[in-house]
Amino acid sequence: MSPKEVIAQLRQMMQAKGFDAIVISGTDPHSSEYLPQRWQARRFVSGFTGSYGTVVITASHAGLWTDTRYFIQAVEQLRETGIELHKLRVIDAVDYPEWLADTLGEGAKVCVDGLCMPVSTVRHMQELFVPKQQVVVNVPDFIDAFWPQRPTLPDAPVFELGVEYTGRSRADKLTWLRGVVAEKGCGSILLSSLDEIAWLLNIRSCDVAHTPVVIAYLWVSAQRAVLYTTVAKFDDELSATLLADGVELMPYDVVVEEVEKWPCSTPIFIDGNILNYALYEEVIRHFGPAVIDEVSPVKLEKSIKNEVEIAGFRRAYVKDGVAQTRFFYWLEKAMERGERITEIDASDKLISFRKEMDGYLDESFSPISAYGKNAALPHYSATAAQCSVLEPRGLYLLDSGAHYLDGSTDITRTIPLGPLTDDEAADYTCVLQGMIALSLASFPLGTCGSNLDVLARMPLWKYCRNYGHGTGHGVGHVLCVHEGPQDLRQNLYNQPLLPGMITSCEPGMYCEGHYGIRHENMLLCYSDEVNEYGDWLAFMTLTCTYIDTTPLLEEMLTDEEKVFIDCYNTGVYETLLPYLSDDEATWLKTKTIDCLYEPEEEL
Amino acid sequence: MSPKEVIAQLRQMMQAKGFDAIVISGTDPHSSEYLPQRWQARRFVSGFTGSYGTVVITASHAGLWTDTRYFIQAVEQLRETGIELHKLRVIDAVDYPEWLADTLGEGAKVCVDGLCMPVSTVRHMQELFVPKQQVVVNVPDFIDAFWPQRPTLPDAPVFELGVEYTGRSRADKLTWLRGVVAEKGCGSILLSSLDEIAWLLNIRSCDVAHTPVVIAYLWVSAQRAVLYTTVAKFDDELSATLLADGVELMPYDVVVEEVEKWPCSTPIFIDGNILNYALYEEVIRHFGPAVIDEVSPVKLEKSIKNEVEIAGFRRAYVKDGVAQTRFFYWLEKAMERGERITEIDASDKLISFRKEMDGYLDESFSPISAYGKNAALPHYSATAAQCSVLEPRGLYLLDSGAHYLDGSTDITRTIPLGPLTDDEAADYTCVLQGMIALSLASFPLGTCGSNLDVLARMPLWKYCRNYGHGTGHGVGHVLCVHEGPQDLRQNLYNQPLLPGMITSCEPGMYCEGHYGIRHENMLLCYSDEVNEYGDWLAFMTLTCTYIDTTPLLEEMLTDEEKVFIDCYNTGVYETLLPYLSDDEATWLKTKTIDCLYEPEEEL
Repeated sequence: MSPKEVIAQLRQMMQAKGFDAIVISGTDPHSSEYLPQRWQARRFVSGFTGSYGTVVITASHAGLWTDTRYFIQAVEQLRETGIELHKLRVIDAVDYPEWLADTLGEGAKVCVDGLCMPVSTVRHMQELFVPKQQVVVNVPDFIDAFWPQRPTLPDAPVFELGVEYTGRSRADKLTWLRGVVAEKGCGSILLSSLDEIAWLLNIRSCDVAHTPVVIAYLWVSAQRAVLYTTVAKFDDELSATLLADGVELMPYDVVVEEVEKWPCSTPIFIDGNILNYALYEEVIRHFGPAVIDEVSPVKLEKSIKNEVEIAGFRRAYVKDGVAQTRFFYWLEKAMERGERITEIDASDKLISFRKEMDGYLDESFSPISAYGKNAALPHYSATAAQCSVLEPRGLYLLDSGAHYLDGSTDITRTIPLGPLTDDEAADYTCVLQGMIALSLASFPLGTCGSNLDVLARMPLWKYCRNYGHGTGHGVGHVLCVHEGPQDLRQNLYNQPLLPGMITSCEPGMYCEGHYGIRHENMLLCYSDEVNEYGDWLAFMTLTCTYIDTTPLLEEMLTDEEKVFIDCYNTGVYETLLPYLSDDEATWLKTKTIDCLYEPEEEL
Repeated sequence: MSPKEVIAQLRQMMQAKGFDAIVISGTDPHSSEYLPQRWQARRFVSGFTGSYGTVVITASHAGLWTDTRYFIQAVEQLRETGIELHKLRVIDAVDYPEWLADTLGEGAKVCVDGLCMPVSTVRHMQELFVPKQQVVVNVPDFIDAFWPQRPTLPDAPVFELGVEYTGRSRADKLTWLRGVVAEKGCGSILLSSLDEIAWLLNIRSCDVAHTPVVIAYLWVSAQRAVLYTTVAKFDDELSATLLADGVELMPYDVVVEEVEKWPCSTPIFIDGNILNYALYEEVIRHFGPAVIDEVSPVKLEKSIKNEVEIAGFRRAYVKDGVAQTRFFYWLEKAMERGERITEIDASDKLISFRKEMDGYLDESFSPISAYGKNAALPHYSATAAQCSVLEPRGLYLLDSGAHYLDGSTDITRTIPLGPLTDDEAADYTCVLQGMIALSLASFPLGTCGSNLDVLARMPLWKYCRNYGHGTGHGVGHVLCVHEGPQDLRQNLYNQPLLPGMITSCEPGMYCEGHYGIRHENMLLCYSDEVNEYGDWLAFMTLTCTYIDTTPLLEEMLTDEEKVFIDCYNTGVYETLLPYLSDDEATWLKTKTIDCLYEPEEEL
C-alpha cells in the first residue's frame, strides 16, 4: 500500500470514531530509537526511513515532524505522499503537540497508540490540551488493523555476554539495582528500555537491526526478578543460568495482566520518559499514587564503562582499524585499476573485512556510504536502486561501525578520491580542527556536553558555517550505538561528563548539492589530575584509523593541531602494524608518515 | 554591636517566639544586588561585606552561604563572629533551604523577613519543607527592632535621563509595556525591580551606592501608571513631566494599602523572582488566582540596547580610556619617582581623572584596586585600615567602572609594576588568550552564554587551572553594573545572546597568597551575516584602554592572537589620540606600538 492509500484508510477510521487527529509516534513499546520492523509504523505510513520523526494526520493535513539531520532526505521521501515536512531544531520550530493544540478546535479528540508512546509525551500533550479541553484517546496498537503482512516479533536466540566482556556479573548488577531502588523508598522497579535490560542481565540477541538487544520488560523487587520476553528464544542452559541468579522468564504479553500481582504496599519505580503509556495505565490502576517516576538509575550506571568494558572497546577499535585499513587500501588500488565501485559495493567490502575479525557480531548501524553530493545528507542511505558510482575526484564519506563481543564501534572517515575544490579542502580542514579541539579539551568535573560542544564548531563558525546535528553521543557496550545520558551538543542538558563515559566526536560540514564531510573519533573521558582548581578530566581517543592528511590546508593549522595529527597517525600505524600484511603495512606507512609539524630551526 | 551580640539578641527573640531558625536574606524589598544601606542587614549581622550571601541562625549554629567569589574574604571577615562559611557553586554544595530542611526537625518554624525575600525563594523553601511539615513564618522587617542607628532611606533628588541619552521616550516605553501586558491577558503589571522602573520611566537618582536608581514600586494598567516612591525627591518640573505622560506619584509605603484598590477583574502580571513575599501576600489576597507570574518583560527589553544607548556606551568607553590612560601614565611616572602609593591612593587617583570627564556621575561600583596577593581575592576591597603599598614588582589589578550620562563602564586591567615570575607571565598570557578567544567568537542566533563560556576558559583549562566566577555579565545603561538576563558562565541558562546586548568578558586567574590576574573588556553583540547556515552574530569590543603586552609569553600566542592584540592597541591609540596631551600621547604610543605579529618573509 502506498502512503496515500494508508492515510486515506486511517482518515476513514478517524471519521468513524470521531477522532480529529491521529499520531504515529515512530517508536516502539520500549521507546527505542531503532525499532524492530514490527513497530516501524511511521515508515509504513509515510515511506520516510529516518530514525527520528512523528507523523500526524488530521482531516485536512498530514505532516511529518523531524529534525535537521533529515530535512533533505524527508523532502525526497515525502514527495508524492501528500505529507508535509515540519522542521524541528530550527528557530521558532513548533513541535506536533503544540501544533495540534493550536490547530485543532475546542474539545478535539487526538488518537494515539499508547503502547508506542512514552508516558511523558502523553502527559505533555495533555497539559497543552487543557485550555481548549482537547483530549488524548489511547487506542493501543491501532495501526495493526491497517497493516497487511505486518512483520512478527523476531525469534533469534538470546546469548549470554560473559563477565570476561562485561566486567560485572548479573548478580552484582541486580544487587546494586535493588540497593538503589530501596534507597528511593521503593519496593520494586519496572524497566522497559531494551538496552538497560540487556546490560543489567548480561544478555544479548539481535531483535532490532544492528542493535543486539532482547525485546522484554523486566520487573525487579527485593525478592524477585521477572523477565517478560519471548521465552522460546532462551535455551535451557541460559534459562537455568538466569534462574540461578533469581531471574524468572515469563511470556512477553502477560506483563499487562501481571502488573496487578506485583506487591503494591511500597511504591514502584518507573521512568516515565521510557515506559509506554498503555502499560503505565495498568501500573497506575494498581499502584495508585505509589509510583516514583524518575530517570532510570540504570541509564547513568550503564554509561560509565568499567575497566573490562574499556579494554574491550580498545580491542574493538583496533579490529576496526585493521578492517578499515584493509578497506581503504583495497579502495585506493581498485580505483587506480579503474574498477566500477558503487557506494554499496564499498560498504559491503568494508563489512566483509570486518567479518574476518574475531568476535564480530554485526554492524552497529546501517553504514552511510556516500560519495560526492550524496554525503551532503548526513544520514544518507544508499540503496541498490539509487546508488552512486565512486569517481576519481571529490570526497567519499563512510560512517559505519560494528559490534564485536568486546565492544561497539562508530567511526567516520572522509577521504579524497582525487582532486578537491578549494571549498572542499578548507571545510575538510575546519571540520578536522573541530574534532581536534574537542579531543584535546581538558575540563573540570561538572562540565556538561553543551559547555564543550562549541569547541568542535568554532573552526567552522569562524567562517559562518555550521552543521545541523549534535557533535557527539554516547555509545553502548555491545548495545545501542546511540546511548545517553551524556551527549555533546548545543542544547542545554545538565548531565556532566564523567570518567568512563565514551562519547563520539563527529563534527561535519554539508554543502547541499555538492559534498559532505564528517570526521568521527570515539573519545573516552578519564580522570586526569586533581588540584586546588578542580578534578580535571580529559579525553583519550579510542578510534584507531588513519586520518587522510592530503586534503589539509596546512596554512590553516596551528602547530598544536599539526602535532596532534602527526602523533595520532603515527600511533595508528604502530598499533596496527602487528596485524597487517607487509603490503598493507607499507601502504599505511605512506598514509601516516607525512609530518605536518616542522619546528623552526633554532638560530 | 558586634555580630556575636546581634546574634545573641536574635536567638533570644527566636526562643521567645518559638522559631527554630531565622534567615537574613541579604537583599532588599526589590531583590537588588547592591542595596541601600538601610537594608544591608546581612552585613550588619555578620560583618561580611560581599555582594552575595545569606545568613542563617539556629539555636546551635550560625552560617553564611556565599559563592566562590567570596570564599577567601568570608573566611577573613567571619573570624571571631562564630559564623561558619557554607560554600556555594562547588560540587555537592548544599544551599541554605536544603540545609534547613535537612537539619531542622519535624514541624520546625523558620522566620524570614518577607519584605526582603522574593516570592520564588519562599516558595522554594515551602516545597522543601513539606516532607517534615516545617513552616516559613513571614515577619516583615524583623531586623528593625535589633538595629540601633539603622540608616534611613536616601533623599537625593531624582533627575530625568533625556531621550538624547536613552533613545526612547517614556511614553513609547509605556505603550510597549501596556501592549505586552494586554497580550498576556493581564489588566495591569506590578514592577518592583529598581532598574526596570528607572529604565521604563527614564529617571535616575543615587539611592543605592554606585547604582543610579530610585527606590520605588510601579503599577501600570491600561489607564494609569502609579509610582510609589519618596515623592519629595521629585521637583515640580519632573513631577509635571511625569504627569504629562500619565505617571502619578504616591508615597512609597502606601503601596501595601493601595493593592486592594487596583482593579482585579483581569489578572495582574508579577515577576515572582523579584517581587517580595510580603507585598505578594497582599496581591494574592486581592487578586486570588488572577496572577500571572512570569519573568518581567522589561528585563529582556532593557538588555537590548538601542542605537542611541550604544553610541552612548561608545562615548563612555572613550572617556574611560582617556581617564585610564592618564591614570596609568601617572602611576608609571609616580612609581619611577619612588612615590609611596597605596591601593586606595591609586583608585582615588583614577576616580579623580574620571571626574574630569564630561557627564561623569559616579563610579559604577566600588573599585577593586589590588596589588600582589590581594588580587587573588576576585572581589578584594582595600580599606584605609588594611591596604597595601604598590611595589616595583609583580602585578597590580584594577577593576573599576563609571556611570556617565552616556552609559556605564566596567573594565579590568592587570599591569606589571616590575619583574614577574614565570607563573605570573604564563597566567597573564592564558587569561588574555581566553579574553581574545571569546572576543573573536562568531556564533549563530540561538547560542547561549553557557555555550560560549568555555572559549574564555580553555587556555587555562589546558593547564588544569580555572577561575571561580562567571566570565561575563550584562551591564545596564546608567543602571546596574550587573544586569540580566544574559550572562557568560558555565551554568546552563537558556537565554540566547541577542544583537544589542552588552556583556563583559572577564576571565581571570587567582593564585591564593601570591597574585591575581583579570582582563576585562566589554563586548557588544551584533548581527554579522545571514546565510544558509544561520543568522550569524559576533562581538565588537567597546572598551578602549590599552593592554600591556610586556608580560606576554609570545611563544604561547598564535598569529591570530598576536594580530588581535596589535590591532586592538593600535585602535586604542588612534581613538584616544585627539583627547590626549602630547606627553600622554607619546607615552601611550610606547605602550601600543609593540608589534607582536611579524609575518614570515616570503621566500
